[in-house]
Amino acid sequence: MSSIEQYAFGPFKIDPRRDAVRFGDLTADETRDLWLTAQTVGTQLESYHKASSLAFAIQDGPQAGQTVPHVHIHIVPRKAASSEENDGNKDVKEKQKLDLDIQMKNRTMEEMAQEADEYRSLLSKI
Amino acid sequence: MSSIEQYAFGPFKIDPRRDAVRFGDLTADETRDLWLTAQTVGTQLESYHKASSLAFAIQDGPQAGQTVPHVHIHIVPRKAASSEENDGNKDVKEKQKLDLDIQMKNRTMEEMAQEADEYRSLLSKI
Repeated sequence: MSSIEQYAFGPFKIDPRRDAVRFGDLTADETRDLWLTAQTVGTQLESYHKASSLAFAIQDGPQAGQTVPHVHIHIVPRKAASSEENDGNKDVKEKQKLDLDIQMKNRTMEEMAQEADEYRSLLSKI
Repeated sequence: MSSIEQYAFGPFKIDPRRDAVRFGDLTADETRDLWLTAQTVGTQLESYHKASSLAFAIQDGPQAGQTVPHVHIHIVPRKAASSEENDGNKDVKEKQKLDLDIQMKNRTMEEMAQEADEYRSLLSKI
């Protein structure tokens, strides 16, 4: 199975063990393993964060926003309030602001390390 | 293999034949087939559009922006100019504007049908 690595600012990234730059460089087995891992981790994250949806994305190449030359998947759990962000209803947005968003802005290194431990414990069961 | 279906406004969507609502509902074989198809189609699209990167995304659930209750992958070819859109350099943005973006805004139904024919021909070789 692919490696599981916490992404520094809250969302997760999943990447294959082998250093491949582009998604198209992965073999069929690597592609399968990578996405089955993402599927399992996504389901666990959604449950852990009491979310109801997930965003999965690959920025495949620098022109798609890839900042490290290594294939990886971003996974972001989403709750109802997340979808209000672009609807212009600022009151709803402010009132229902995601815990996840607040954590992303205010966390210290210590808090992030603690969260990493929690995720490690959660994902060690996979 | 998964079905290949043109997405109405230019980017592609790839979806499995079976009606599954969430990504986690797919079996291991469906997940593998879906992503191998996306990988192949992405490579073809990137070459066809003379692009240099690809964005792959699954909006998995309504709170992640999913508007039809059916698992699908969005694939968007990206060129150098695409990454300038958010850097505040409007001149560069205007000068290097993607053909793809222009097409997305101005195309008629007839033009979209013609593009669909071109894609159909391109992807019939896969």
